[in-house]
Amino acid sequence: MGRYELEYPKDATNTVKRLHERGSYALRKIHGLINSSQIIHVSFNVPDSPFPATLPMIGQMGSFERPSADLGDPLDLYLHGYVSSRLFNLGRAAGQQGLPVTCAASHVDGLVLALSAFHHSYNYRSAVLFGHATLVDDPEEKLYAMELITNSVVPDRWANSRLPPTNAEMQSTSILRVRIASGSAKFRDGGVTDDKNDLGNEDALNSVWAGVVPVYSILGEPVAAPHNRVDLPAYARQFIDDLNQDNRAYSLGAVKGRSEA
Amino acid sequence: MGRYELEYPKDATNTVKRLHERGSYALRKIHGLINSSQIIHVSFNVPDSPFPATLPMIGQMGSFERPSADLGDPLDLYLHGYVSSRLFNLGRAAGQQGLPVTCAASHVDGLVLALSAFHHSYNYRSAVLFGHATLVDDPEEKLYAMELITNSVVPDRWANSRLPPTNAEMQSTSILRVRIASGSAKFRDGGVTDDKNDLGNEDALNSVWAGVVPVYSILGEPVAAPHNRVDLPAYARQFIDDLNQDNRAYSLGAVKGRSEA
Repeated sequence: MGRYELEYPKDATNTVKRLHERGSYALRKIHGLINSSQIIHVSFNVPDSPFPATLPMIGQMGSFERPSADLGDPLDLYLHGYVSSRLFNLGRAAGQQGLPVTCAASHVDGLVLALSAFHHSYNYRSAVLFGHATLVDDPEEKLYAMELITNSVVPDRWANSRLPPTNAEMQSTSILRVRIASGSAKFRDGGVTDDKNDLGNEDALNSVWAGVVPVYSILGEPVAAPHNRVDLPAYARQFIDDLNQDNRAYSLGAVKGRSEA
Repeated sequence: MGRYELEYPKDATNTVKRLHERGSYALRKIHGLINSSQIIHVSFNVPDSPFPATLPMIGQMGSFERPSADLGDPLDLYLHGYVSSRLFNLGRAAGQQGLPVTCAASHVDGLVLALSAFHHSYNYRSAVLFGHATLVDDPEEKLYAMELITNSVVPDRWANSRLPPTNAEMQSTSILRVRIASGSAKFRDGGVTDDKNDLGNEDALNSVWAGVVPVYSILGEPVAAPHNRVDLPAYARQFIDDLNQDNRAYSLGAVKGRSEA
């Protein structure tokens, strides 16, 4: 980590306007949110349609030019998923400049139940990145991105799967690289915020439960495939245990407002 | 449930093109996915920007005109969240016709770890709805939507919170109603799919673990607010227990391909 945290510059596209929610422009925070999201919703404009298209994809921040780059450094977003013929053609038509895309990821960390329905809320973390997407053609960069993304599903999984990819597998894998133009994050943590009036409302206080219900994602007990012959490896067991512990701790920490989103 | 299931008509906007993933146009399936998603990503085009805007919002399907409507009936999507001045102004400018929006929600149900990196996948469910959003002005409809959305966070919560909303609360709550134009769902369930070649590859079979790691969301033990005076009510305890059991069962069922996404 350097002596200061890089931030995306604020402009009309990415500025978080709501005052009582916390916004952030720190690359480290935004990239971390994207990397910890199992699904990223990728939206782009479609000619002759009033509706943006939105596709669920898997993504991870990285730098092919400088693989040792830090999470807080300028990075590209590599995306894997079904690249529809529409997306493919739009990407090709956009040429080297790339197709403008908006990439969003959100976590819910808690249900905030206040005395009044109005003050109900979520503890949550949400990130959005704006950038230009191009298809990755260079086989070396494609391999880099495939390893990056596979290891984001389960760390060390790439080196522990059947390698190398066949030519057919390489051919039928599409990877998009998004050069980031800007981004922002929003989050809410802490406990219940109730009005002064409600905090003095004896009827409400004596009848309504107020508090936070933590929400987190769990990895369950692995189910081996019929053709599996080996024991669950240590790298997978470790990942499952660590993630379950981390996710639970995060949602509980968020209630206390001590989260480090 | 009627004698047949209504479907959204297929057109250029919503047609699922990938063959080996399963697409669905059934209203019941799509509405159910939206309703069970704690966050919906709402995207819309912004004049003078190449990037769609994407906002995380809370939403629920409903019908103010016919509140008893079934999940498989034509319904509107009611959205609650921060309605930015940009979204507000775009909505106003769009007039009665409404602002075209794309609403996406996705669940990850499992990490599918194959012998080859290439055949790694997710079990997942994803829904997208296209429609036209307008701000709800009618106080009765706004109350209907606030109750609908609050009860989607925790069933029966509305009637068990401090009511009625004050005038100030009503004024500062923005609800969007999306008239649905079309929609679709995509999902993947089942176990690992490996190539014939890999299934005959002794090296791979003897070294790579293959199987599915279930993924599901959990509600943790509720944390009461400092000003809370009452025990956790039965409706909340029941909801937490039921949801945790259902989510776990769903992700395990998905491994066997017996999910009813």
